[in-house]
Amino acid sequence: MIKHALSVTREADFAAWYQSVITEADLAEESGVRGCMVIRPWGYGIWERIQRLLDDRIKAAGHENCYFPLFIPLSYFEKEAEHVDGFAKEMAVVTHHRLIADGKGGLVPDPSAKLEEPLVVRPTSETVIGTAFARWVQSWRDLPVLINQWANVVRWEMRTRMFLRTTEFLWQEGHTAHASEAEAREETLKMLEVYRAFAEDCVALPVVAGEKPENERFPGAVATYSIEAMMQDGKALQAGTSHFLGTNFSQAQNIRFQNAEGQLELAQTTSWGMSTRMIGGLIMVHGDDDGLRVPPRVAPWQIVIVPMLREVPEDEAVVDYCRALQAELAALSAFGEPVRALLDLKPVKAATKRWGWVKKGAPVIVEVGGRDVAGGNVSVVRRDRLYREDGKLNSTIVARGDFVGGAAGLLGEVQASLHAQARARLDANIRRDVTDFSALEAYFAENETKPGWLEIQWAKPTGEALDKVVERLKALKLTLRNVPLDAGPANGVCIFTGDTAVERVLVGRSY
Amino acid sequence: MIKHALSVTREADFAAWYQSVITEADLAEESGVRGCMVIRPWGYGIWERIQRLLDDRIKAAGHENCYFPLFIPLSYFEKEAEHVDGFAKEMAVVTHHRLIADGKGGLVPDPSAKLEEPLVVRPTSETVIGTAFARWVQSWRDLPVLINQWANVVRWEMRTRMFLRTTEFLWQEGHTAHASEAEAREETLKMLEVYRAFAEDCVALPVVAGEKPENERFPGAVATYSIEAMMQDGKALQAGTSHFLGTNFSQAQNIRFQNAEGQLELAQTTSWGMSTRMIGGLIMVHGDDDGLRVPPRVAPWQIVIVPMLREVPEDEAVVDYCRALQAELAALSAFGEPVRALLDLKPVKAATKRWGWVKKGAPVIVEVGGRDVAGGNVSVVRRDRLYREDGKLNSTIVARGDFVGGAAGLLGEVQASLHAQARARLDANIRRDVTDFSALEAYFAENETKPGWLEIQWAKPTGEALDKVVERLKALKLTLRNVPLDAGPANGVCIFTGDTAVERVLVGRSY
Repeated sequence: MIKHALSVTREADFAAWYQSVITEADLAEESGVRGCMVIRPWGYGIWERIQRLLDDRIKAAGHENCYFPLFIPLSYFEKEAEHVDGFAKEMAVVTHHRLIADGKGGLVPDPSAKLEEPLVVRPTSETVIGTAFARWVQSWRDLPVLINQWANVVRWEMRTRMFLRTTEFLWQEGHTAHASEAEAREETLKMLEVYRAFAEDCVALPVVAGEKPENERFPGAVATYSIEAMMQDGKALQAGTSHFLGTNFSQAQNIRFQNAEGQLELAQTTSWGMSTRMIGGLIMVHGDDDGLRVPPRVAPWQIVIVPMLREVPEDEAVVDYCRALQAELAALSAFGEPVRALLDLKPVKAATKRWGWVKKGAPVIVEVGGRDVAGGNVSVVRRDRLYREDGKLNSTIVARGDFVGGAAGLLGEVQASLHAQARARLDANIRRDVTDFSALEAYFAENETKPGWLEIQWAKPTGEALDKVVERLKALKLTLRNVPLDAGPANGVCIFTGDTAVERVLVGRSY
Repeated sequence: MIKHALSVTREADFAAWYQSVITEADLAEESGVRGCMVIRPWGYGIWERIQRLLDDRIKAAGHENCYFPLFIPLSYFEKEAEHVDGFAKEMAVVTHHRLIADGKGGLVPDPSAKLEEPLVVRPTSETVIGTAFARWVQSWRDLPVLINQWANVVRWEMRTRMFLRTTEFLWQEGHTAHASEAEAREETLKMLEVYRAFAEDCVALPVVAGEKPENERFPGAVATYSIEAMMQDGKALQAGTSHFLGTNFSQAQNIRFQNAEGQLELAQTTSWGMSTRMIGGLIMVHGDDDGLRVPPRVAPWQIVIVPMLREVPEDEAVVDYCRALQAELAALSAFGEPVRALLDLKPVKAATKRWGWVKKGAPVIVEVGGRDVAGGNVSVVRRDRLYREDGKLNSTIVARGDFVGGAAGLLGEVQASLHAQARARLDANIRRDVTDFSALEAYFAENETKPGWLEIQWAKPTGEALDKVVERLKALKLTLRNVPLDAGPANGVCIFTGDTAVERVLVGRSY
């Protein structure tokens, strides 16, 4: 039996395993501030890769980045609260602008420095960006406005979980304004597709893109779309959302323009976001019992070279050999970018380093010892094929030139194999043959620990009828995920009501 | 006489001119939140370029990025306040985590959601990062720790000015811990040099790198270094700082390690930062009476193509010609990166666009009309040579192939010429021949509006003697800037005391 690098397996305790990967892969740690995490270099390096690749795609789709203030005056939310039902009020509120000594060796907010109007730490920038749009947009010539911002936001969460739900998190939020509804709807779907393609191509995360049912819409949105990824415990993770807001926000924020005919119209707006939550998804889709496995396109280091040093004079030749190898690899290109190759020279034992990089999930680990140098070889470990069939570490000796020549292709293979594994799992775990509610109940009762999703047919109820459906599902700890864009047409009856079905919707447990 | 694009000149009112550049170049605007600005796409695009280029250099110097929480528990500052004199207390304090309706249609902080311990919005992350270092550092093997963070920070400023002093600003803060004082001092100077070289090479900003006198040190630092840039009004702008903190912070935060001999030692730490203030410096060094001039290396778009369309069928050929030109330019490389060329197709008159890009400071503007297409030419405007000697716009007709062939070189020339102009101005405005205090007074009285700096000799007083010097200078609205690293040796007497001088220090007005 294989002795894995982590002390807890996915099978034994998925939640504990998740936390263990975060710790053992040096991704993040508790900060001492409730619900806020420290993102460590390996975790942040993955986020930087996500940022760089997604930002390129956002810009290629015509958007420009800008930056809006962290603080939003309370009155902006009062205006929004009037217009938007379901407005969330759990936010961090700044009330003072100075600390003074309390006379007992401590510090307290200075009562004389109380703000006249409290400031809210942004939970999202809809209100403040909408206010700017109202200034910027006068004529149809000013449209479309296509902007994006990379920022930190704060939502006061009662129960937090690293990367998945934290008080502060990092994200990008896109906001656009358009002259016509058709153009705004097109933008909403275009950015959904950017997210879908980014998740699949870069994070190797197979997802289902679709429209959220009414009860799962962003407050104030006319339509909300999401990409949903399946974790290894069968639960769904919403990994990106795109909203068509119609004129609901432009009404509240007075975003009006003179059209070509000289009439005043409300702009049609959209917003869309993806966050550090994606890293939680990456862990739960690609991680295994030895730690994380990072897809090469988002790996801070794609190839890590570990010299096997023995504190002998011959070490110098090994290090020289490794340096030359590192330079050769860095001169290569993979996925249209220079290969990111690290030579790990930390004063730590080679075996400790190897297992450190296994747990971190570096896609390829190359070990070089005196024998490799003598033979002109390298010993290669692929993180996605860590063990041989006999359970031993799958380390392959390869001629150095062959390894360098094939390195870019190897990274492509690892990327594809991680995607293929996850894709196969997603496809195998969506069932489409459950047509009555008792079968649905039975399915989730039988698959308590690793449920997967059901794609069911329904009559798309609204209002109170929908509330009832949501309640029935909630009793089973289930939620409606989305109506897949590529689902087949409805051809049966609603699993909830027996009425004629109008579409197919995904049901599952979720994060 | 030239009619310039801005309505206010540098000569007439430098402060109003500065604000006018920010507005007319679409760099930033007021946000409706006191002291916080909206950074618009052109301003943020410059910041993104600064980030990308500086980040590359920070990483090349061995540092890794990570992310620490926005919120810092108040108790962390109590600990720091004990150890650090001059601790600044103007900070944004979060006291509540929920808003509720006030019953009168408004929202108020919910009294039942008062935080047990208030949270401070980070003014700098020294305390929270130091606390992490204490967890991370156990043995000499864990050292050095070399990290950096790009983040927003908040300092409650009474008087704010866009980019120069804002309540919220964006920056990077580097924090490192080392086993030896020598290594930490070396790091401090290494990062100072990174800033110096970055400012000169990328922002074309000539600076003087040197050590701050004792009274200008960061609270808690053993030594503070800065780069100082000269604005066109002769004032100094501190554009980056690097601090050697000794063991002052590791003492407060308990950052200890076991050395190779098994003894427990305090780590030696450093920190260093550069912020969006740099954009204020860029404006005041490179701007002119027609707006901003952005050095090509940090320009979001280096070459902007403006088609001269007349709403006639021939327009199509002009647009096709421009598209092909844009593609040819984008395939070129300048400064080791792809050329950033924009085709501006907004529905606005060509002349309006041209002047818009002049005010924004795009390095090269290319206009293409029907006649250019027919002749296989382009009309080129270099932003750094906007007018001919006769005062007319300096637009040159060039064969398209010649322009494309020389475009990368042209960008290099613009970069070099902006740097050379600024360098000549800096060099011409530092006087080194003032040796007694009455001459210093006379110099600044005579040069009230555009003073420049004096490099004077002094005995480097400390404590109360230094306080007296600072007071005498303050009465003249002057400050000590820094002791240039490359200043000549002292060979005279102290301008303040008549004692034997020990070094040369810069004196000037400042932002």
